[in-house]
Amino acid sequence: MSANVKVGVIMGSQSDWETMKHACDVLDELEIAYEKKVVSAHRTPDLMFEYASSAVTKGLKVIIAGAGGAAHLPGMVASKTELPVIGVPVKSSNLNGLDSLLSIVQMPGGVPVATVSIGKAGATNAGLLAAQILGAFNEDIQMRITNRRESIKHAVLESSENL
Amino acid sequence: MSANVKVGVIMGSQSDWETMKHACDVLDELEIAYEKKVVSAHRTPDLMFEYASSAVTKGLKVIIAGAGGAAHLPGMVASKTELPVIGVPVKSSNLNGLDSLLSIVQMPGGVPVATVSIGKAGATNAGLLAAQILGAFNEDIQMRITNRRESIKHAVLESSENL
Amino acid sequence: MSANVKVGVIMGSQSDWETMKHACDVLDELEIAYEKKVVSAHRTPDLMFEYASSAVTKGLKVIIAGAGGAAHLPGMVASKTELPVIGVPVKSSNLNGLDSLLSIVQMPGGVPVATVSIGKAGATNAGLLAAQILGAFNEDIQMRITNRRESIKHAVLESSENL
Amino acid sequence: MSANVKVGVIMGSQSDWETMKHACDVLDELEIAYEKKVVSAHRTPDLMFEYASSAVTKGLKVIIAGAGGAAHLPGMVASKTELPVIGVPVKSSNLNGLDSLLSIVQMPGGVPVATVSIGKAGATNAGLLAAQILGAFNEDIQMRITNRRESIKHAVLESSENL
Amino acid sequence: MSANVKVGVIMGSQSDWETMKHACDVLDELEIAYEKKVVSAHRTPDLMFEYASSAVTKGLKVIIAGAGGAAHLPGMVASKTELPVIGVPVKSSNLNGLDSLLSIVQMPGGVPVATVSIGKAGATNAGLLAAQILGAFNEDIQMRITNRRESIKHAVLESSENL
Amino acid sequence: MSANVKVGVIMGSQSDWETMKHACDVLDELEIAYEKKVVSAHRTPDLMFEYASSAVTKGLKVIIAGAGGAAHLPGMVASKTELPVIGVPVKSSNLNGLDSLLSIVQMPGGVPVATVSIGKAGATNAGLLAAQILGAFNEDIQMRITNRRESIKHAVLESSENL
Amino acid sequence: MSANVKVGVIMGSQSDWETMKHACDVLDELEIAYEKKVVSAHRTPDLMFEYASSAVTKGLKVIIAGAGGAAHLPGMVASKTELPVIGVPVKSSNLNGLDSLLSIVQMPGGVPVATVSIGKAGATNAGLLAAQILGAFNEDIQMRITNRRESIKHAVLESSENL
Amino acid sequence: MSANVKVGVIMGSQSDWETMKHACDVLDELEIAYEKKVVSAHRTPDLMFEYASSAVTKGLKVIIAGAGGAAHLPGMVASKTELPVIGVPVKSSNLNGLDSLLSIVQMPGGVPVATVSIGKAGATNAGLLAAQILGAFNEDIQMRITNRRESIKHAVLESSENL
Repeated sequence: MSANVKVGVIMGSQSDWETMKHACDVLDELEIAYEKKVVSAHRTPDLMFEYASSAVTKGLKVIIAGAGGAAHLPGMVASKTELPVIGVPVKSSNLNGLDSLLSIVQMPGGVPVATVSIGKAGATNAGLLAAQILGAFNEDIQMRITNRRESIKHAVLESSENL
Repeated sequence: MSANVKVGVIMGSQSDWETMKHACDVLDELEIAYEKKVVSAHRTPDLMFEYASSAVTKGLKVIIAGAGGAAHLPGMVASKTELPVIGVPVKSSNLNGLDSLLSIVQMPGGVPVATVSIGKAGATNAGLLAAQILGAFNEDIQMRITNRRESIKHAVLESSENL
Repeated sequence: MSANVKVGVIMGSQSDWETMKHACDVLDELEIAYEKKVVSAHRTPDLMFEYASSAVTKGLKVIIAGAGGAAHLPGMVASKTELPVIGVPVKSSNLNGLDSLLSIVQMPGGVPVATVSIGKAGATNAGLLAAQILGAFNEDIQMRITNRRESIKHAVLESSENL
Repeated sequence: MSANVKVGVIMGSQSDWETMKHACDVLDELEIAYEKKVVSAHRTPDLMFEYASSAVTKGLKVIIAGAGGAAHLPGMVASKTELPVIGVPVKSSNLNGLDSLLSIVQMPGGVPVATVSIGKAGATNAGLLAAQILGAFNEDIQMRITNRRESIKHAVLESSENL
Repeated sequence: MSANVKVGVIMGSQSDWETMKHACDVLDELEIAYEKKVVSAHRTPDLMFEYASSAVTKGLKVIIAGAGGAAHLPGMVASKTELPVIGVPVKSSNLNGLDSLLSIVQMPGGVPVATVSIGKAGATNAGLLAAQILGAFNEDIQMRITNRRESIKHAVLESSENL
Repeated sequence: MSANVKVGVIMGSQSDWETMKHACDVLDELEIAYEKKVVSAHRTPDLMFEYASSAVTKGLKVIIAGAGGAAHLPGMVASKTELPVIGVPVKSSNLNGLDSLLSIVQMPGGVPVATVSIGKAGATNAGLLAAQILGAFNEDIQMRITNRRESIKHAVLESSENL
Repeated sequence: MSANVKVGVIMGSQSDWETMKHACDVLDELEIAYEKKVVSAHRTPDLMFEYASSAVTKGLKVIIAGAGGAAHLPGMVASKTELPVIGVPVKSSNLNGLDSLLSIVQMPGGVPVATVSIGKAGATNAGLLAAQILGAFNEDIQMRITNRRESIKHAVLESSENL
Repeated sequence: MSANVKVGVIMGSQSDWETMKHACDVLDELEIAYEKKVVSAHRTPDLMFEYASSAVTKGLKVIIAGAGGAAHLPGMVASKTELPVIGVPVKSSNLNGLDSLLSIVQMPGGVPVATVSIGKAGATNAGLLAAQILGAFNEDIQMRITNRRESIKHAVLESSENL
């Protein structure tokens, strides 16, 4: 892993990639280096613990973790690292991600998970939130966020023409 | 731990004891030896993994795990042992245990948790379910379950008098 | 029924087979003999009672029961046998299985149902849970479960390559 | 049982009486004879089946059944009698009766339960609905219902004075 | 309207017919005469009141009313007739019929609606419930219900062959 | 009724007054004349229709209607008048007003109800919304709303001192 | 903007237009002039505030605002204008608009939003509600609303023929 | 404001302080300077915008915002600053904070809010998450977090004695 990698993007299953790639797209867009990996809380619990407990030493600053259903990955990773962990509730096949959301956000006092919205919008926002955390201590990144917002604002302003 | 102990009863926090003692009451009543412990998924993750991965060797046959909110204890224990794990959703302070229930029951294919009802009734049933699992391979225990049902049936029949 | 059959798989309607076959697939995979049957709580109540009350004598050790909507099959079977009963909430057409889940899991104290997740993942897990119950008293089965987990772990580890 | 008894009021547990007595109050008020009994789906399943299957022969015309949580009593009784069965969802301790409601109302096609609202209002309405069913074939009872409505209407009209 | 017509089937909109025809199918099958009509609580409130208040005089014994969303039709009809009113929650486009269900079933004490399950199964059951109400006072109809159940039971028994 | 009365405040039951008085308090505060009345959709349906259909002629400009559970009052009043109808979901005893909210807000296309939040806050807002509707055509009222907002803003600004 | 424009229709994103056009269709049908615009609470917050705070001066009488998910547009616009604001919960991709509905309707006491139903029916009703507000002070518009209702009533009456 | 202040803690109303003080307690415990303020999205919208847009310049690194019901404060603040914003869903009086949670977490792609659990546990976690974000760039803070976790772990281990 390059020393520049500040963000780890993990997900409970390969099938979560369709959602989680939107986090990576934002990180790419904002020129933030990241690594990505499938790490399953239930199927590879030891790997999960090892990943979480070595994250600080490896130089990561933020971890983004996506999972669906009884989504234990973000909370369990958070229990094994002092880094901020962002949880993305992946839409589940039966309960539309409400189970994923509650399993991720309702953490007991002591171990927070920074939860974002369900599905694609949440993954995009996870990438942005990671960037905002880094950007609070890095003016270049913060400027890129400002610029991204500026172009989105202009796109909105112009879209009224299309109604 | 005595060699007779077949059931481990664990819970995420001391405050869950008010609920989980109902599981222990049933086990006492049916003369089934058990051990009980606070094991927190988020605050003592290493203890949790050690507890789960040594359970078979210690001679346990069933684990009962109770937790509330983003209740990861039953599912994570299940990921580290081949024993059947019974999950008790403890009533949470804000969402009445619906978050606990979904976090416990909605496990992905591959790692089951035998989930019972929310709160006290669920804890009672966790004790009974553990007994039924043991009883399927032990006629004495099965007989005690039959007898317990018989007395409950009689209590119901008599209760009509009190309407 | 062969004397080797330790697991009974029943479902409320033939249309539940699409879900419940995933329980049977796991049992096949782990070389556990089972029988399967349509038994409807509401349309064949007498058959259901007869099935449940003869299960111990027939030599079954676990019953898996799947049903949807006002899903009464698992709980009613549980009321007529001392065997552990695993309930699979089949996804319902209108409320996505939330009604099935609550109807199965929220049993009153005295008669537990070991509830698994909604739909296909739940059926898979029902098969595994039955195997884990048998495996707690049979080292061969337990070993097969361990091996199955091992191969799944390897599949997860390799899947990171595909992101 | 007197030959006049046309309505059977049953409930899953003695603790449901606090709710179910409101059904009996209405029947008393409208001078309709009834019997009342604790009949538990899970703890006295055989009694339940016997009660349901003998109801027509005994001369009952309607059965009112109240239960909470995974409330199987109304639906299972309905599966064993051709009489109309009215289901009262008793408020449950954790999920406020939403589980009771869904377990009672979401019956599969083939076996209806006439479900009323959760708790006390529902029990009152169960008594009234039984009366309306009898009243459709009995002008005296229908007249008493009309009169009851008339007095309630007057009470409402006068209550504006108290705002 | 023929003097034989005992059941009125009404619905809030023509688009509800796809659901409500299942009620009519059952009535046809059990040889029970009925009339059917679109009566909208919100778009034809006066027609609704007139329909409800003339129902007893016209000789109807039961009214089946289906509606979706903020489904006021069954409850408002019930407020204007002493006849038993069966409410069918039609599946709504956004909330899957949960809004329809709660709007129909949660009636205040004083005016019951006999609520059945959401959608097609509920409509089928509404037809059966109407038949069961009539059948409690008519042995021919009751016999036809018994026969219908008998054939359904046989279909279930045979369906095990198809797993 | 005085010619000045522009707002009608109605509620389904006297017990709703505890909630609905907050609407009247705001109207008093903003010096807007109103009348108040208990009008029950289910217990006084004819009065409800008469109230709604005479509202325009009486000179009312807005109707505020509060109700709980299967809350049909706002929607049914809306079906009988061209005036804007504001619906207040009164908190229900079992489902916390979620049933009231869905029964009021989920009106079919054609008959809107201007729904506000559940309970006391909603009643306050119903009074304010009525004032805002009148205020859009009356500068004095609009000025009083502006002033009220100004004082609330100052109260908020000062409240930071109390943390 | 023409001096005749009395209604502003805004929405959080261009993709909401598919829903919100139904509000505009009704306004067109009732010959009420309006303007339409994309105004995003989160992406163009300053534009939103400017739009809201200049609405009275521009001569608007009602604002219709549609948004989905964490739908802040209607409430934030309401905080910056004394005009009545109608909120349309746009159906969200994961939670079916339940999140949109609660984010819009559950406003704290002090700043009301007149909330209508989720999705297309709600947008239609938003247009009608705006018309009803204007119509309370304009007999021509009120007459057009009456006529529209009249034709809808006739359509309903005729639709019974098609069952 | 002292130059050391890195965290802003704001809340929608003084009554939220009972919840939000738990965030401040953690910050005090970890020796992190913060400022606290009542800032209401709906009652002081201009103050909110000014607070958010000046936060970077003032030297803040993280904003914690708590609100209940239609909780717009966290999301609107997030729309006006590039800093990471942590949202605390305050328990609401009717829907137990489910409305607060959905209003905060379900942000559209582009503007994230780092949402924590409902109520007191969430406020505690908001303080910790702010510390973890600062700690990723400050070893002293990170060490204090590690120490805090260590003592909590010991408290859990000892609590088993009290069962």
